[in-house]
Amino acid sequence: MRILLVNPNTTQSMTDKAAEAARAVAGRGTEIITATARMGPASIEGHYDGALALPGLLSEIAVAEGIDAAVIACFDDTGLDAARSLIGFPVLGLCESALVTAGFLAHRFTVVTTLERSRVLLENLVYRYGFGARARVRAADIPVLELEDPVSGALGKLRRQIERALAEDGAEAIILGCAGMADLAHALQQEFGVPVVDGVSAAVKQAEALVAQRLTTSKRGSYATPFSKTYAGVMAAFSPKGM
Amino acid sequence: MRILLVNPNTTQSMTDKAAEAARAVAGRGTEIITATARMGPASIEGHYDGALALPGLLSEIAVAEGIDAAVIACFDDTGLDAARSLIGFPVLGLCESALVTAGFLAHRFTVVTTLERSRVLLENLVYRYGFGARARVRAADIPVLELEDPVSGALGKLRRQIERALAEDGAEAIILGCAGMADLAHALQQEFGVPVVDGVSAAVKQAEALVAQRLTTSKRGSYATPFSKTYAGVMAAFSPKGM
Amino acid sequence: MRILLVNPNTTQSMTDKAAEAARAVAGRGTEIITATARMGPASIEGHYDGALALPGLLSEIAVAEGIDAAVIACFDDTGLDAARSLIGFPVLGLCESALVTAGFLAHRFTVVTTLERSRVLLENLVYRYGFGARARVRAADIPVLELEDPVSGALGKLRRQIERALAEDGAEAIILGCAGMADLAHALQQEFGVPVVDGVSAAVKQAEALVAQRLTTSKRGSYATPFSKTYAGVMAAFSPKGM
Amino acid sequence: MRILLVNPNTTQSMTDKAAEAARAVAGRGTEIITATARMGPASIEGHYDGALALPGLLSEIAVAEGIDAAVIACFDDTGLDAARSLIGFPVLGLCESALVTAGFLAHRFTVVTTLERSRVLLENLVYRYGFGARARVRAADIPVLELEDPVSGALGKLRRQIERALAEDGAEAIILGCAGMADLAHALQQEFGVPVVDGVSAAVKQAEALVAQRLTTSKRGSYATPFSKTYAGVMAAFSPKGM
Amino acid sequence: MRILLVNPNTTQSMTDKAAEAARAVAGRGTEIITATARMGPASIEGHYDGALALPGLLSEIAVAEGIDAAVIACFDDTGLDAARSLIGFPVLGLCESALVTAGFLAHRFTVVTTLERSRVLLENLVYRYGFGARARVRAADIPVLELEDPVSGALGKLRRQIERALAEDGAEAIILGCAGMADLAHALQQEFGVPVVDGVSAAVKQAEALVAQRLTTSKRGSYATPFSKTYAGVMAAFSPKGM
Amino acid sequence: MRILLVNPNTTQSMTDKAAEAARAVAGRGTEIITATARMGPASIEGHYDGALALPGLLSEIAVAEGIDAAVIACFDDTGLDAARSLIGFPVLGLCESALVTAGFLAHRFTVVTTLERSRVLLENLVYRYGFGARARVRAADIPVLELEDPVSGALGKLRRQIERALAEDGAEAIILGCAGMADLAHALQQEFGVPVVDGVSAAVKQAEALVAQRLTTSKRGSYATPFSKTYAGVMAAFSPKGM
Repeated sequence: MRILLVNPNTTQSMTDKAAEAARAVAGRGTEIITATARMGPASIEGHYDGALALPGLLSEIAVAEGIDAAVIACFDDTGLDAARSLIGFPVLGLCESALVTAGFLAHRFTVVTTLERSRVLLENLVYRYGFGARARVRAADIPVLELEDPVSGALGKLRRQIERALAEDGAEAIILGCAGMADLAHALQQEFGVPVVDGVSAAVKQAEALVAQRLTTSKRGSYATPFSKTYAGVMAAFSPKGM
Repeated sequence: MRILLVNPNTTQSMTDKAAEAARAVAGRGTEIITATARMGPASIEGHYDGALALPGLLSEIAVAEGIDAAVIACFDDTGLDAARSLIGFPVLGLCESALVTAGFLAHRFTVVTTLERSRVLLENLVYRYGFGARARVRAADIPVLELEDPVSGALGKLRRQIERALAEDGAEAIILGCAGMADLAHALQQEFGVPVVDGVSAAVKQAEALVAQRLTTSKRGSYATPFSKTYAGVMAAFSPKGM
Repeated sequence: MRILLVNPNTTQSMTDKAAEAARAVAGRGTEIITATARMGPASIEGHYDGALALPGLLSEIAVAEGIDAAVIACFDDTGLDAARSLIGFPVLGLCESALVTAGFLAHRFTVVTTLERSRVLLENLVYRYGFGARARVRAADIPVLELEDPVSGALGKLRRQIERALAEDGAEAIILGCAGMADLAHALQQEFGVPVVDGVSAAVKQAEALVAQRLTTSKRGSYATPFSKTYAGVMAAFSPKGM
Repeated sequence: MRILLVNPNTTQSMTDKAAEAARAVAGRGTEIITATARMGPASIEGHYDGALALPGLLSEIAVAEGIDAAVIACFDDTGLDAARSLIGFPVLGLCESALVTAGFLAHRFTVVTTLERSRVLLENLVYRYGFGARARVRAADIPVLELEDPVSGALGKLRRQIERALAEDGAEAIILGCAGMADLAHALQQEFGVPVVDGVSAAVKQAEALVAQRLTTSKRGSYATPFSKTYAGVMAAFSPKGM
Repeated sequence: MRILLVNPNTTQSMTDKAAEAARAVAGRGTEIITATARMGPASIEGHYDGALALPGLLSEIAVAEGIDAAVIACFDDTGLDAARSLIGFPVLGLCESALVTAGFLAHRFTVVTTLERSRVLLENLVYRYGFGARARVRAADIPVLELEDPVSGALGKLRRQIERALAEDGAEAIILGCAGMADLAHALQQEFGVPVVDGVSAAVKQAEALVAQRLTTSKRGSYATPFSKTYAGVMAAFSPKGM
Repeated sequence: MRILLVNPNTTQSMTDKAAEAARAVAGRGTEIITATARMGPASIEGHYDGALALPGLLSEIAVAEGIDAAVIACFDDTGLDAARSLIGFPVLGLCESALVTAGFLAHRFTVVTTLERSRVLLENLVYRYGFGARARVRAADIPVLELEDPVSGALGKLRRQIERALAEDGAEAIILGCAGMADLAHALQQEFGVPVVDGVSAAVKQAEALVAQRLTTSKRGSYATPFSKTYAGVMAAFSPKGM
């Protein structure tokens, strides 16, 4: 099967890192196709970036061909509902997939994300996905792009929040709350001795699971696809009226 | 004070109708400035349209000058969090404003919206805004643009759902769940003898209330504005990378 | 329009302070009429005082004439449901109005109230109004009447709790949880750089908003007014049976 | 032990009926002392009556002597928090006691009350006491005082709602949601073959249980008794200021 | 009446201690019959022990004769739903009974249990019983059987958590979260000046209360007893198939 | 990888049917090993059967060798927490897996189970897993073993509840709430045009997903394995004391 991994920001190195994580867990017979948004913000930090990333994200999904499922490679689950309405194959988000995965392993867990600005946004997702009584969210005060920089001290900050999650939150597992942390999961799991869930890996496995079960987004009710939502339609939506 | 009323879809007649409702309730000294999205969908029916409307919506807010507060004239509260992050003045949504308003008048109430596709989306907002135990949502099976058409039978369908809300939901008040219904509130309130809340009116009054109290969106935490989110920044986000 | 501001305790200086806050935000054309309970406790600190304040409060509302809306000037929302059942015009409470107002400005916020005894009472209101996941309550250990005394050190205690709310609760905005703090909101907002909401101001603006929209308490269902609930009726209720 | 059964309305026949139910379940060694409010409404139907009943109710509790626990004989739990703050012995409400009792017997149950006006008020108590997912509330359209009238058809209306609760709500047990229904519980339990809980009986047994365990209302935090809350204090609160 | 107190673990000394607590609060005319599981774990610490204790527990209940109600003497409420389905008389659990009892005395309270392993398990019960907003759970790091050992330092650890509950949780009352702590409740209540609830005592009084009201487990719906659930049936279930 | 599929009841034909569903979705390289409880009830219908099935279930898991993950083939998730505490490899339940799977496909969905007795039990799981606002449960009035009988009319009853779920619940997807329905999912999906999720398939894919991500049950906190929980330990637990 072919899974499209779309990075909704325009930073190719983050796409590459996510693709590596995706391929490391993909089953035999799964091909990971990547796409990087061609317009929009370079990283997604908060509500505003998330909104501006949508056209770039949806365009990549609209033009994809021969795809069985898609993963949106951003922990904010930006555009997840819109993408599920746009097309027929299943679409997975990192936050929803990671929460669900941790939920099979532990009663209580903590998401460690990058910036304070994203903390409450993720808390709201935690409530929406039904984990309000089980999951907490911490911010490590790391700008997303700093995760790409080996000398930034980002890893140290991340470690400190994991320590506090275990000591203060009663966390039994950890979720890495940013697609850019995908490469750190195994080492941190070794170090801390608790499950450490990476959203990219979790979402890829959920995508495979749905395809294997021949399940796809319901087109009855809230995800019903409106008439003629073709790529042309997506693009047309951005032509200023009267032009 | 000057309140910007932005219609996030591109249909001018809906802007005009919303503006009329806004001006009818605006206080002395309040000026209603209108804007209609120059790109994006002609109506917003569900998640997908809501996502595609964001750039057009945010552009209008980004370029506005001399504004004290903004109202997003769509009942889905599309882009509300993003707009609050983008700028310094307060931004109001119709759904949040209408729920809060009805909450002062009744313990239980029902939102009557247009299409089934929007019903669950609004239910999710109802939960998010804390009204899960108090408000229900019904769809009247009316395409948004049909509300503009006097011979469409839309009003009859709306009436039937109000009747059912009173009889079956124990509703003590009604919220009209679409900006395009703004002109019907007073007549329906007369007819059914219960408060009928229109989101446009509710949001305009909330905007005035915040400005009068010298209150504006908190810039600490989740609505913190990222660096250099100017109009140029909004537009730049949509230039395909490398172009 | 004429808004009745009723102080449910018998302390005239608190009525005066609340009236000042009310008039500072009232729109052009709004007249603030004040009333102070003529019987009941001198301040309202907890459930017991709140209960004893009800007859005094309801009497003032029952005898009011030519009124468009009423505000109960106590942060505990004492008698709010009863007042809404008693009369036809809208009645606003400080806690409900302030929570709703803060909700437009921030995802997370903290109410700072006077005494520990009132803290849990307000937490229960926070849950009832649907803000359980968004708002916390702190007590500053200040007896209500001490707020009237400039050398009491009350302001210092209040400041310390605001500092802790920002640092420990992740608060993005502050609500002053006592009518007697109305005069402090603007200075604290300046000092701490986050929105500081005063309940009196918030409630007055909500009252204006409802009147402008020609909305009033639903008389269908839980707020239905029982037969002959006149002032005579209120008073009769307090005559010992058989006298 | 001596349990005070206070009827917060002024109708002696309702006190008598509640006392009969109380004595039927009281343990050996328990004496039921009754009191009827000497001022206030003749029946409690909704928020407004509940508020006006408080002074009469609290006065009876304040003057009681040699009492080990009190039961407020009204299903609305009017004044429960205030009474718990006023005095040192435990105070029980009918609604809280009945919900808790039914919770030991069934996963799902329905409260059948008198008037639509009280339905939402009780639903709000159901949420507050933590039974929102387990209990529903139905109104049988019976004015409270009609329960005293054998030819009123009240019993028939009550039966119809019980039938609907079993068929439509999936109720596994029934709670009679009015003190005036106390005499009907056993016959209805026989007739419908499911547990039928009467609030008066439930509250009396809870009162006995607390006394036997030497447990009483916590005076730390929200139920702390303010200084000098004597009977004189209660009465003084109702003397108009300056008289 | 005769109340069966079943200890679901196999440690007789814990049965004896629970029986002592039960008899100390039982009403005149109540006889406490004890039973100790004849198979299963020696103490119940977490999910696994709780599961293995079920056959021993259910066997004791199935063979009991002339019983009016049963109490399962384990704070985890192990097997409570199964026991309620198995037989006709009411069955009470310690956790549910203690939470409900504390709920009559305080708005906020803390359960202090033995091991971290049991903490989240009890938190889940707290949510299930509807006390998620009111009760917290703390673990004192005491293996259950150490409570039987006077020189273990267990009491000191328990005291420290009670101190923290009062200072940090805003607890207004304490629940002892282990049947083995039943003997400590009165002394701790004296020492800390807040209500201290013991689950064994609470459950015994609830059992008496139900019997006095002639109420028993609903056999409509989720607790319906399957055909021929006799003792033979219980035992047969454990005979390996084909033997 | 090797996944153990344990049927906690003693009916081999149900094991076989579940194994067929499991193998139909298993990835290349996954081997499905089956086990059927050797003691316990022949079918699991409600709390009581669920409790009695635990020893048989846990024994099978305890003796399994060379296993990477286990699936408990019962929709009640009987023994799930205990099994997770017992061993080191991940354990999946059908209900949790199916809810999570449906959650990726639809906002609202309905579980259709067999008997009314199981309906509320599953509703309680729905709440526990965080789907209280999204999922409903219906019972089709089919004894579990009737599903094995082609002339029982069971399929017709199931179909009727699916029709009602779509029409009355607003269901956008369906979950088959019994392991014995695993073979019907694809045909019903075709017939009704909405996703139909089978719990066995869902759980097998979740098991594969966790193993591929090298994730396993957290042993910190509530699932910590007690000392020496070997097969001998499981068996010893059932030897009556003193024998």
